[in-house]
Amino acid sequence: MGKIHTLVLIRHGESQWNIENRFTGWVDVPLAPSGVAESHRAAQSIKEEGLEFDLVYTSTLKRAIKTAWNILEDLDIMHTPVHHDWRLNERMYGALQGLDKTETVEKHGMDQVLIWRRSYATPPPPMPADHEFHPRKEKKYDFLSDAELPVTESLACVVKRFMPLWNDTLMPIIKSGKKLLISAHGNTLRALVKHLDNIPEDVIANLNIPTSVPLVYHLEETDDGDLKPVKIEGAFAPMSGKYLGDQEAIKAAIAGVANQAGKK
Amino acid sequence: MGKIHTLVLIRHGESQWNIENRFTGWVDVPLAPSGVAESHRAAQSIKEEGLEFDLVYTSTLKRAIKTAWNILEDLDIMHTPVHHDWRLNERMYGALQGLDKTETVEKHGMDQVLIWRRSYATPPPPMPADHEFHPRKEKKYDFLSDAELPVTESLACVVKRFMPLWNDTLMPIIKSGKKLLISAHGNTLRALVKHLDNIPEDVIANLNIPTSVPLVYHLEETDDGDLKPVKIEGAFAPMSGKYLGDQEAIKAAIAGVANQAGKK
Repeated sequence: MGKIHTLVLIRHGESQWNIENRFTGWVDVPLAPSGVAESHRAAQSIKEEGLEFDLVYTSTLKRAIKTAWNILEDLDIMHTPVHHDWRLNERMYGALQGLDKTETVEKHGMDQVLIWRRSYATPPPPMPADHEFHPRKEKKYDFLSDAELPVTESLACVVKRFMPLWNDTLMPIIKSGKKLLISAHGNTLRALVKHLDNIPEDVIANLNIPTSVPLVYHLEETDDGDLKPVKIEGAFAPMSGKYLGDQEAIKAAIAGVANQAGKK
Repeated sequence: MGKIHTLVLIRHGESQWNIENRFTGWVDVPLAPSGVAESHRAAQSIKEEGLEFDLVYTSTLKRAIKTAWNILEDLDIMHTPVHHDWRLNERMYGALQGLDKTETVEKHGMDQVLIWRRSYATPPPPMPADHEFHPRKEKKYDFLSDAELPVTESLACVVKRFMPLWNDTLMPIIKSGKKLLISAHGNTLRALVKHLDNIPEDVIANLNIPTSVPLVYHLEETDDGDLKPVKIEGAFAPMSGKYLGDQEAIKAAIAGVANQAGKK
């Protein structure tokens, strides 16, 4: 049997726009107070599980960064290196960014909104250049060419931009024996989970990952240098990984994410 | 004239042990609530001055890291890379670490304590291997050999370990045009200021740097590739750099630092 490594994933805590029921994507919205509280609960679960980290990868978005910082602070390992990579950013929601989800449903119909939210390969309409939340307005993306900087993305697009980071950077780190925490977003974590557990496109697009619940994977090195998940005790199907914490509360949180577009 | 770069230095905000009047050194004491408040005031001064950062260097100690995090959060640039380097750590206070400063004066006499605190080259007694606060007990220093890991330091020792970081890493970063914030400690900042302004040993050992006040330097590239400070308007003698904020309050804070060992 190959060497087994532990990888911990976490989606950021609830953000202000999760609460306001708005499409967020790349808009750099802070954690809501409830999201801050969630991040501390996540740290507690990680402590109880006895997990440690040697480094953290996160996105360039503050809701994921703050989630990571709060965990590092609570674990008393604030000196841990934290790397920020735009390829861990949430899916770019194009022209939908900033819109109220319920209003969008009223305007475009539930069927259309569900396609934008839950189809694997259909992106929402692209963001016009003068859009209030266009990422070109943010200095931190200056280094990305127009070809690289997304103006809308499907989950398929997220997979395409995320996988090079996984293959070229994150896999080698994990295989070097370093204990990695990835603090990211619903759709980048979907991209990773899809790859690890070979989840079909129509299933992954509807797999809901709850905010701020640590998701633990055991990954085994294969002879050809890949990392394959080993089903962990308490795995949360269809994943091989398990969520840390109260399993009933987690199921309720997942159902809550699924109902967001239907909120009144 | 050579290219001029801006460098910002900050000593961490007041820690719990600053308040308790104990020798801290490498003991990883958190910011006091007052220190947290100070870090937010520092961010405000930096904002008012219109300064920006491309990256941050800090120590492996949480009081300096948290000061940096709070500044990045308030400036809304949490994605800024933060590097931790033990060579920015506070002076290792040897066997004095953890002791109450007033009690130490009562036991060893003010003259002896002043030598330990303020002489340039006399370190305090070394820390015994079984000392409660020995850095060997901390996993984050595992990578340092016994020869590298200090068990006591004078300011001269701090200069010796800090200068390679300055010459080999920080200078090239500044010369590359990146705007650097260094969040560190009283004695590592003394080491840097001593080098930049060529301050004599007996003067630097008594130069008090107040907590959480941004110190701005303008550094000019010389023909031989060095960085020399250009005296800034409002410079705080004997330094070429200036403190941001209320200058009278800063003078009072500096006087407060000087009086610490005499506190009852």
